[in-house]
Amino acid sequence: MQFLRTSDADFPKKFDRVVRDRRESDAQVGRDVATMINEVRERGDSALVEYTTRFDGHHLTRDSDWQIPLKDCRAAYEALDSDLRDALELAASRIRAYHEGQLPSDRDYTDDIGMRLGARWRPVDAAGLYVPGGRAAYPSSLLMNAIPARVAGVERLVVTTPTPKGEVNPLVLAAAHIAGVDEIWRVGGAQAVAALAYGTKRIGKVDVIAGPGNAWVAEAKRQLYGVVGIDMVAGPSEILVIADGNNNPDWIAADLLSQAEHDPTSQSILITDSENLARQVEDAVDITLMKLPTAKTAKASWDTHGLIVLVDSLDEAPALSDRLAAEHVELMVDEPQSLFDAMRHAGSVFLGRHTPEAVGDYIAGPNHVLPTGRRARFASGLSVLDFMKRTSFIDASEAALAAIGPAAIKLAEAEGLPAHALSISTRLK
Amino acid sequence: MQFLRTSDADFPKKFDRVVRDRRESDAQVGRDVATMINEVRERGDSALVEYTTRFDGHHLTRDSDWQIPLKDCRAAYEALDSDLRDALELAASRIRAYHEGQLPSDRDYTDDIGMRLGARWRPVDAAGLYVPGGRAAYPSSLLMNAIPARVAGVERLVVTTPTPKGEVNPLVLAAAHIAGVDEIWRVGGAQAVAALAYGTKRIGKVDVIAGPGNAWVAEAKRQLYGVVGIDMVAGPSEILVIADGNNNPDWIAADLLSQAEHDPTSQSILITDSENLARQVEDAVDITLMKLPTAKTAKASWDTHGLIVLVDSLDEAPALSDRLAAEHVELMVDEPQSLFDAMRHAGSVFLGRHTPEAVGDYIAGPNHVLPTGRRARFASGLSVLDFMKRTSFIDASEAALAAIGPAAIKLAEAEGLPAHALSISTRLK
Repeated sequence: MQFLRTSDADFPKKFDRVVRDRRESDAQVGRDVATMINEVRERGDSALVEYTTRFDGHHLTRDSDWQIPLKDCRAAYEALDSDLRDALELAASRIRAYHEGQLPSDRDYTDDIGMRLGARWRPVDAAGLYVPGGRAAYPSSLLMNAIPARVAGVERLVVTTPTPKGEVNPLVLAAAHIAGVDEIWRVGGAQAVAALAYGTKRIGKVDVIAGPGNAWVAEAKRQLYGVVGIDMVAGPSEILVIADGNNNPDWIAADLLSQAEHDPTSQSILITDSENLARQVEDAVDITLMKLPTAKTAKASWDTHGLIVLVDSLDEAPALSDRLAAEHVELMVDEPQSLFDAMRHAGSVFLGRHTPEAVGDYIAGPNHVLPTGRRARFASGLSVLDFMKRTSFIDASEAALAAIGPAAIKLAEAEGLPAHALSISTRLK
Repeated sequence: MQFLRTSDADFPKKFDRVVRDRRESDAQVGRDVATMINEVRERGDSALVEYTTRFDGHHLTRDSDWQIPLKDCRAAYEALDSDLRDALELAASRIRAYHEGQLPSDRDYTDDIGMRLGARWRPVDAAGLYVPGGRAAYPSSLLMNAIPARVAGVERLVVTTPTPKGEVNPLVLAAAHIAGVDEIWRVGGAQAVAALAYGTKRIGKVDVIAGPGNAWVAEAKRQLYGVVGIDMVAGPSEILVIADGNNNPDWIAADLLSQAEHDPTSQSILITDSENLARQVEDAVDITLMKLPTAKTAKASWDTHGLIVLVDSLDEAPALSDRLAAEHVELMVDEPQSLFDAMRHAGSVFLGRHTPEAVGDYIAGPNHVLPTGRRARFASGLSVLDFMKRTSFIDASEAALAAIGPAAIKLAEAEGLPAHALSISTRLK
């Protein structure tokens, strides 16, 4: 953990180093992934069989090795402890309600020269959702990815997920049942992303691929962007807690560790104007780590990437926060609105002492798939718009074309595009 | 030009080949671009100097070699022929009006459990616009890219454009004046895109890069997606004209050639239920080509990629159109709405006989930067949203956290994330 003070002379240089540190994958991952994508594109299912045996120890032999039937999802759902089932249903209904409010409106109007103009939104035909296996198999991720696609109106919703040594996660299957997934393929890694993008004999291709994954999965999505749509380029996640001195250090420590326990490359940052709180939080982190089952990961993250920045005044916080453009920003003060108003770049903001980031991970309603690694400067969290696209349209009456056609002809001629000009002038004769 | 009939036995196979033909850049471009990006990232301005000398024959020595001053843009604007100036101003005002209607609304509401939820849109801080030099230097492109960024509220709007042998295009400068561009750098190619993404000593980095370019520029944007936001992965453009027999073949021929004259890799497709019209259009294309100054390019495109599909009924057209997911689709019939309603995938649709695609290129108002190469399946035309991003927010009262916190704890525990659970449970004590 690094401790910086904005009043120190070398603060700008040190903070700059934090901002530039990408914590991301290397060129070797890029080359490996390019090879895997090519193999799947060229050899289809047989490449999937080989990679799945090699990386997951799962043999894709019979049909039942390839797909998890939807009735298994229903069975997993029905076998759930009722508290857990209720929690998943509550999460799903709140996520659904929030995302329904994102559905865009079409435009269709006629302007002052009598030209009809507009734009029409439609869902993509098919979406693929990557669901990690093993430690990072989260039912909450499935809900957060699948529900926006369903709300968008996507007809075919395909999940791919690795099942190491054949193992499946019943919670994920139950979530798939709740979200109404159409197909679940037991394939993971970059090879699954390639199969979704290009299609194989067994797995029909999709138009958009969303969902979290390790560095290989993220790199495969990045390389295939353009062949398909993708949700975003994802990297290790981060939390920034902005807190005044009037906080319970245990609460803040838990919030910082809730990010750190995800992955050793996660980053947790505290900005505070209270040296006292800063020291108390440091201690609370150490104490909490002693009893935390995920302490190994959380400690690795906190030790390597953890940061406390002591500011003279919280007025300095929004500018620092904008430079970090963090995935999650907590404003742990009594009146968070003014800090929020002063901020420009963040994935999601958690206002006030009773809004820990984890409430947003599961159940508040907004999406927990958010831009990481400073990408909140230009990117947004996952939404129904990621599963839709817009078609603009123009309908010119004869009179409207006569009104503005001559100007278009002038411009086409100036650009040296005579057929463009002709396509208008021939109609104005 | 290829002539297909849907009634022929081998139509599915042949049409499938058309759909799969990507007309796009090869792996060598990818490797060259990766090298150039690395050079600019490592060596900054000195790499720009070398590449600009090599590719553009322009020497970046003095400050004035690097930037075009804004006063030159004003001078170019003032020197314009008044008809052309009026045409550019009309285009700019119509583009501005259409894009102002795209500005998204923020959300801020309190739900039934007293939890405040919402989302807030903000512009990115800085946008870079690539403007091609030479033949493809189009003032209309500058307007179409810059105006949405300005409408979005972007503070810093940077243009990079190659100036081969020092040559600048006064029309582009005039358009930059109208759009209110802040900086114009005389750098082009993949090296310019890399400079915008990473920044150099001279050129400050941006958050989003938009604008058309050759295969190297498009590939650089694709490779840098994630480091910055980009408008889209662009490829050669295409037009699909769906026409009944009751059309003037000269009009249809001009429309097909207006796409073909852009580039030899452009594609023009006619779907019609009238063999008579099809033959007349073929002839009209040949006759028009004889008098067209851009005939060499247009003929190369039409000969290689041109396609006429004869259908038994225009009812077949929407499904074929959806497979092509074309950038531009013209519906040259009396009542285009029913065909439009049946279509799902297209960049922009031009309804009725008096709406040639070229009117949308210049002056109708909707953006002419549209998804190509079948990407309308998942992508949309350029809009103000490409220059903005959304921050979601959550504000839980103590009561709201008490209401749904226990369900979140349940889920966090089930996912094996105890610090997540703790960050909520410690607040519920």
